[in-house]
Amino acid sequence: MANFLNFLLPQDKKFFPLFEKASANLQAISKVLVAMVSTEDSVKRRELIKEIERLEHVGDNITHEIFNELNANFITPFDREDIHELVSSLDDIVDYIHGSAKRIEHYKIEVLPTEVVKLAELVLSAAEELHKAIIELRQLKHANKIKEACVKINSIENHADDIFDMAIGRLFEEEKDAIKIIKMKEVLSALETATDKCEDASNVLEQIIVKNA
Amino acid sequence: MANFLNFLLPQDKKFFPLFEKASANLQAISKVLVAMVSTEDSVKRRELIKEIERLEHVGDNITHEIFNELNANFITPFDREDIHELVSSLDDIVDYIHGSAKRIEHYKIEVLPTEVVKLAELVLSAAEELHKAIIELRQLKHANKIKEACVKINSIENHADDIFDMAIGRLFEEEKDAIKIIKMKEVLSALETATDKCEDASNVLEQIIVKNA
Amino acid sequence: MANFLNFLLPQDKKFFPLFEKASANLQAISKVLVAMVSTEDSVKRRELIKEIERLEHVGDNITHEIFNELNANFITPFDREDIHELVSSLDDIVDYIHGSAKRIEHYKIEVLPTEVVKLAELVLSAAEELHKAIIELRQLKHANKIKEACVKINSIENHADDIFDMAIGRLFEEEKDAIKIIKMKEVLSALETATDKCEDASNVLEQIIVKNA
Repeated sequence: MANFLNFLLPQDKKFFPLFEKASANLQAISKVLVAMVSTEDSVKRRELIKEIERLEHVGDNITHEIFNELNANFITPFDREDIHELVSSLDDIVDYIHGSAKRIEHYKIEVLPTEVVKLAELVLSAAEELHKAIIELRQLKHANKIKEACVKINSIENHADDIFDMAIGRLFEEEKDAIKIIKMKEVLSALETATDKCEDASNVLEQIIVKNA
Repeated sequence: MANFLNFLLPQDKKFFPLFEKASANLQAISKVLVAMVSTEDSVKRRELIKEIERLEHVGDNITHEIFNELNANFITPFDREDIHELVSSLDDIVDYIHGSAKRIEHYKIEVLPTEVVKLAELVLSAAEELHKAIIELRQLKHANKIKEACVKINSIENHADDIFDMAIGRLFEEEKDAIKIIKMKEVLSALETATDKCEDASNVLEQIIVKNA
Repeated sequence: MANFLNFLLPQDKKFFPLFEKASANLQAISKVLVAMVSTEDSVKRRELIKEIERLEHVGDNITHEIFNELNANFITPFDREDIHELVSSLDDIVDYIHGSAKRIEHYKIEVLPTEVVKLAELVLSAAEELHKAIIELRQLKHANKIKEACVKINSIENHADDIFDMAIGRLFEEEKDAIKIIKMKEVLSALETATDKCEDASNVLEQIIVKNA
């Protein structure tokens, strides 16, 4: 099967660079996210939120481009539905990153608890693993590297769950202002959902290697 | 391909009228939604909520009918999974409209902010575009009209996102009663999700025309 | 078609026992859920939450095992996508049960309203119906029994919706502490979503019998 795929690769030149563009953009927006939640300078933070918005649009365009290729090409490097699911989940991660940034801005949140920084860092780690794994898709010979990345993403997502639960628990214990609780819960849950979506992407990758390796 | 479909159409007479029945019902329930959130007369509002409930049941029956046809027929006018997804997303929109009405009733909300009316109007606009597009499905010659409707729905959904963000921001600024914030957030988010589901339906329509036009 | 399936069954011995293992585990965790929300003894409750955590891991392993079989076997007793969806929805139910337990623990909720017990009992009833239906999958001759179970699950889900709406309405009326409202809403909505996921599983079962009976 791997040989058959290698033979087809020249015709599928379009897809692999697009997948990598999508995961590189995800990695980029995740880096800006970490910087944005780490700074205490409100002017700097606002600039970084603008940059997150810009990268979300970039991501939308890449997603659209891949869907168009998918509809225009009869031959695809993997099952069309797997490509669709992979790209949709990368798009979802970017959306939730953008969502957390929008909430910080619209709710005029100034002080972020350490758990927000921790969750943003976990999103970045998962994004880096996804990017590595997606680069390996070109040559399924290195299926092991993809599997390793998926195992790491899985453990990142479990870790994020624990951080989220702790953060909410601490919030209910320390914060007595219900409105502040509501706002912070929304930010934390957007970030936690971002890591869930990383796991969704990782599950599709696992499926692809099982089918094709 | 269009010719081939035209040839098949007589056998598929069942599907198109059912799709139109579903989108006409969506349009009808959306009109009642706008009337319900626009009135200040609580007796009138309660009546309109009852009517929304009735139309939600009507929608459920149409959905069921289409799923039964889908399972009973070997030949379908489009890919079965696309039909399934289209009908499910129409059903979802109706459910979220119903959900927003139930919340207004159960939470005994009396005064609705202007953003609720605005969001309901956007749901209605998207429903009207969906109904127009679905009527055009019979003859894919007019794929352009379907595409136009999809572009409009996309921009409606973006607009709804902005209205929602503004409404939540304003709520946090002006409302100091956390319980009222929780209640209103639930109503707003049901309406905003309804427009997300309109975009899901529109994405399926785009997929159908790319495959068949 | 039924005969054809019977012929294949020997080769598919792997799948049916795994489906039953999954639904038996769902039934087991649902029983622990009812016991956990019914007890007023906080030490006992903590122990039962630990047991829910353990059964959630057991469920994860069964899900993984089925996905591996699905990828490793060319012949499956039903459409692969239906199997995937059935098993994913069983996994989702278990996750939401676990989620409700985690929230009770992390939010340090001590007194649970009667609606929580009622919802947990509805989750258990739906789990029992699912387990019965899944046992019948081996011999699709008894499709009627599966259909009956699906009808019951449907009515359980509707009932759960009503209980949930009433609980939230009562909460807004009787509880004046917004933070307690937020916490309880999260527990109730995890349980209500668990019954939604039971309906998803039931919909897949209906689809399987329509296709194969």
